[in-house]
Amino acid sequence: MHASSRVSALRNIATRLRIDSVRATTAAGSGHPTSCCSAADVAAAIFFSEMRYDPRSPQNPDNDRFVLSKGHAAPLLYAAWAEAGIISRDDLVTLRRFDSDLEGHPTPRLPWVDVATGSLGQGICAAIGIALNARRINSDYRTYVLLGDGEIAEGSVWEAAHAAVHESLDSLCAIVDVNGLGQKGPSLWNHDIDAYVTRWQSFGWHVIAIDGHDMDAILSAFDEARSTKSKPTMIIARTVKGKGISFVEGKNGWHGKPLKKGEEADGAIAELETQFVPEELPAAQPRPRSIPRPPAKAPAPLSPPSYALGDKVATREAYGSAIARLGTNDERVVALDADVGNSTFSEKFEKEHPRRFFEAYIAEQVMIGAAMGLAARGAIPFPSTFAAFLSRASDFIRMAAISNSNIKMAGSHAGVSIGEDGPSQMALEDLAMMRAQPNMTVLYPCDAVSTDRLVERMAYHGGPAYMRTSRPKTPVIYGPDDDFHVGGLNVLREAGGDEATVIAAGVTLFEALEAYDLLSKQRITIRVIDLYSVQPIDTATLVRCARETKGRLITVEDHYVAGGIGDAVAAAVAGHGFSVHRLAVREIPRSGAPEQLLDYYGISARHIVDAVTEGRRV
Amino acid sequence: MHASSRVSALRNIATRLRIDSVRATTAAGSGHPTSCCSAADVAAAIFFSEMRYDPRSPQNPDNDRFVLSKGHAAPLLYAAWAEAGIISRDDLVTLRRFDSDLEGHPTPRLPWVDVATGSLGQGICAAIGIALNARRINSDYRTYVLLGDGEIAEGSVWEAAHAAVHESLDSLCAIVDVNGLGQKGPSLWNHDIDAYVTRWQSFGWHVIAIDGHDMDAILSAFDEARSTKSKPTMIIARTVKGKGISFVEGKNGWHGKPLKKGEEADGAIAELETQFVPEELPAAQPRPRSIPRPPAKAPAPLSPPSYALGDKVATREAYGSAIARLGTNDERVVALDADVGNSTFSEKFEKEHPRRFFEAYIAEQVMIGAAMGLAARGAIPFPSTFAAFLSRASDFIRMAAISNSNIKMAGSHAGVSIGEDGPSQMALEDLAMMRAQPNMTVLYPCDAVSTDRLVERMAYHGGPAYMRTSRPKTPVIYGPDDDFHVGGLNVLREAGGDEATVIAAGVTLFEALEAYDLLSKQRITIRVIDLYSVQPIDTATLVRCARETKGRLITVEDHYVAGGIGDAVAAAVAGHGFSVHRLAVREIPRSGAPEQLLDYYGISARHIVDAVTEGRRV
Repeated sequence: MHASSRVSALRNIATRLRIDSVRATTAAGSGHPTSCCSAADVAAAIFFSEMRYDPRSPQNPDNDRFVLSKGHAAPLLYAAWAEAGIISRDDLVTLRRFDSDLEGHPTPRLPWVDVATGSLGQGICAAIGIALNARRINSDYRTYVLLGDGEIAEGSVWEAAHAAVHESLDSLCAIVDVNGLGQKGPSLWNHDIDAYVTRWQSFGWHVIAIDGHDMDAILSAFDEARSTKSKPTMIIARTVKGKGISFVEGKNGWHGKPLKKGEEADGAIAELETQFVPEELPAAQPRPRSIPRPPAKAPAPLSPPSYALGDKVATREAYGSAIARLGTNDERVVALDADVGNSTFSEKFEKEHPRRFFEAYIAEQVMIGAAMGLAARGAIPFPSTFAAFLSRASDFIRMAAISNSNIKMAGSHAGVSIGEDGPSQMALEDLAMMRAQPNMTVLYPCDAVSTDRLVERMAYHGGPAYMRTSRPKTPVIYGPDDDFHVGGLNVLREAGGDEATVIAAGVTLFEALEAYDLLSKQRITIRVIDLYSVQPIDTATLVRCARETKGRLITVEDHYVAGGIGDAVAAAVAGHGFSVHRLAVREIPRSGAPEQLLDYYGISARHIVDAVTEGRRV
Repeated sequence: MHASSRVSALRNIATRLRIDSVRATTAAGSGHPTSCCSAADVAAAIFFSEMRYDPRSPQNPDNDRFVLSKGHAAPLLYAAWAEAGIISRDDLVTLRRFDSDLEGHPTPRLPWVDVATGSLGQGICAAIGIALNARRINSDYRTYVLLGDGEIAEGSVWEAAHAAVHESLDSLCAIVDVNGLGQKGPSLWNHDIDAYVTRWQSFGWHVIAIDGHDMDAILSAFDEARSTKSKPTMIIARTVKGKGISFVEGKNGWHGKPLKKGEEADGAIAELETQFVPEELPAAQPRPRSIPRPPAKAPAPLSPPSYALGDKVATREAYGSAIARLGTNDERVVALDADVGNSTFSEKFEKEHPRRFFEAYIAEQVMIGAAMGLAARGAIPFPSTFAAFLSRASDFIRMAAISNSNIKMAGSHAGVSIGEDGPSQMALEDLAMMRAQPNMTVLYPCDAVSTDRLVERMAYHGGPAYMRTSRPKTPVIYGPDDDFHVGGLNVLREAGGDEATVIAAGVTLFEALEAYDLLSKQRITIRVIDLYSVQPIDTATLVRCARETKGRLITVEDHYVAGGIGDAVAAAVAGHGFSVHRLAVREIPRSGAPEQLLDYYGISARHIVDAVTEGRRV
């Protein structure tokens, strides 16, 4: 048993959290008060008994961390902060207002939020990255994550289940708030606590089932979790949705509904106020911590890569070499992969820095989620897989953008140029997926030197970034002194009287250079641009080239026509009245030899020549 | 024990499947022979003892079905077909060639393939849909799905695990080929059979662990699966990668590598040939079935919807009403949702047709995967959730496009117009995701009438389709006689001397109409287009309008700027030299009131007015 005074204080905090959650959502006119009420006792225990954190210093690297995976219970989180003195209690009623950072679901606009949540099943994946980071920085901080029962149906949760066990993350403690009700009706397993216990046990977690409204049981469970070694702990908390407000308790149809201003809300608050218990001690406080740490030393810049002009090196292989070198210079760099490290060449990093490499197996969601968690705590993570399979983590990438997460993704095997494996392995929509996010940096190098240089650039450019690499070997065309930067491009062929500007990147850049040679024989010159930075894009140079080449811009890309390089260039130059002729893949492709496919789908040198000369005749 | 003659015949088939897999991959110079060899005994048993199917009639609705979730073992599948006489054995060596339908991973170009596989963890989700379809058509056919051990790490597999149990799918039998090796090294649980057994048991499956090379054990397992009622069966088959070829058996480093032509391949085949055993009976044959069924009756067209001009109805609600009405007229229509049926309004369908509604809970991957399986067997599935959360199934949508799957997706709560819930719930990249697929129909109605009409159009337009719906109520602007079709648009305002063409859809259409009214007061007229079909797009009308309105096209959309309506229109008119002024969301948004957000992010009537008048001054 825990000291009754401590329990009483925490119970009163839980009641205040419920009252604040009701007040805030009623003021907002929307939100999820019943989902807050079910988790209020657990939240009180986490924030005012269990976690060690300094409320004045969210960036303290040794703070215990909390992730609200059930992001719709945001008002509960904000109420806990108010209780801890992190924000003013008066601010709580600004919930969901345009002029308030207390958004409908938590985002890292708020310094205590590591990752945006609200897309369910993601917070637990981020928590794994946060826990892995503790190991990276040799900290004993613990990571707590609160899930709803509805989100347990998400596959990503089970990716997290195996990853946490594989990494023996005993500093990770998850809690499921089993209130039994989803949005539309009962959740998948309703209040069948055993359904949760057996599943999580079978995945290798230490599992504790409790009454989530019994403060003594909650505290004991956290004690037990803290003393559990070599495996993560899952606390299954049986709760009642809307707990404390009798007319909504356990009732369906109250998900995401605030109590109405006036009688309804006032009645609920009055009822909650009757639940305060006598306290013998002042209210519980967070347990602050302050461990002095030496300042991190600045990393050395990379030396120029040692590729020779004409060497044939796949950009995916150059990527692997670059992150391995970068990892040597900068201890913050970590890499993750999804069982294809021998294809993406992240295995080069693993070989050099095995303690900073995380194998996610074939589970792309937890790979990106863990990368988000690592990034939130100061690591510079490079997760990689086939570009096609990054689409598996598309919703995580969306949330990473909302979080402005500092993750550096790499996708290999882009486009039809992979050849025989066929369309399931070809990324032809990855540029569309990545470009859609307005804060995403999108890089697409064509050779080993530019890959190497851009890996370093993306590492130190803030926010989410993506590098697209290719399967085939391509010749090195750049020297050690060539410059590359986020938002740049290189004009590789340029002359007075150029007939058109051909804009390419990656494998198609070599098709463009071949087209240049073919056209030269007809005494036609074209301008050739290597658009290695697809987003941001160098609008000024594109517009200048358009003006200098009769207004004719031709893009050629190993990607579907929608959302790729053609669209990026067109959007950039639209304000200047130019339009773009797009050469791109326009149908679902099939297996075949790479050259055969480039030609069949209309993105080979021959098609560029045709586009230049046909346009000329018009 | 099974008759030894039957066992001998099947063992010999397995040996032939191995030899054919080696021959084909060696001829192709790429592929995964070792992943075929581990599963050859199981495949022989499935195709020549267990499954009932008519090899001459892939479309027989009562055939048992097989899904190769580990799609990289395609040569094994093709070899089984050759053995069954479905294709010629001589064709096997055309594997992966551009002129062959025997692609690197199976696609539905081949009539026995229901869904494309090759992105791991998807086949089992499709198998759930195929099994659900048996229930829909009152057939006793059984569904078999073969998984690799590596793909068990995918979260989607665990979504399937709970969905199959929730639906009590005892006609579903899954087999994991536990060869212990992934691409890069040992799989997550290697040969720890117990790790598989406990997990699948905990999820409620009937689990049978066997030696996957013991034909008698394989046949017994299938017998047991067939007699298991009310739950699906999972057979955990312990196997050896490269089984039968001593110099690769169980060795790491042989994933996705063909044997070299000459000594290496010849030696392997010679060794396999020594493994033939004496047979007392002729080779096993498929067990054909032919159950007469009456032809399906053609569905009646929908009567016109009964909305009155000016009614305020959210398009999401009109969507729910439309699929419910459609379901009454056409028994093939089914609906699926991910716990938000009271937001997407698919609950209207559920209420009318509960037996044809499938609740996937918060598990979007298995929802789309099951829809693909249902579509493959003749259903017309409408899966729905918040549009933002369809991104969770992005890789499934990619594979649905490769499969040209007849699924009809609906995403609600698009854009910043959802308001207070904040960015995690706002779909702002769904058009980019959907448009990227070249065969995807993308519809975006603005009112209840057009929604109703377009639901019917999308149902009977072949291939994958997506409808974007909105949260706010919008006024009905169309009457019962207005026509809508895939690839169409409506010109709502048109006059001689129009200053520009404003192209909008969904909620922004009303901003455009308001801008029209505001500009009219300044005696400026604009053309206003309702672009309800974003893909395909009516290029001819857009070009005509551009020509008639001084070449000025302005798009306005509740979507990020990349990949949406602006890009779609720009790509359509580029060949005619027109460019497009795009009004779209250009940064990560935040919580706020809908009108506030539309205005702040630059897509309200005021911004349209500015774009028209500023352009005019230039």
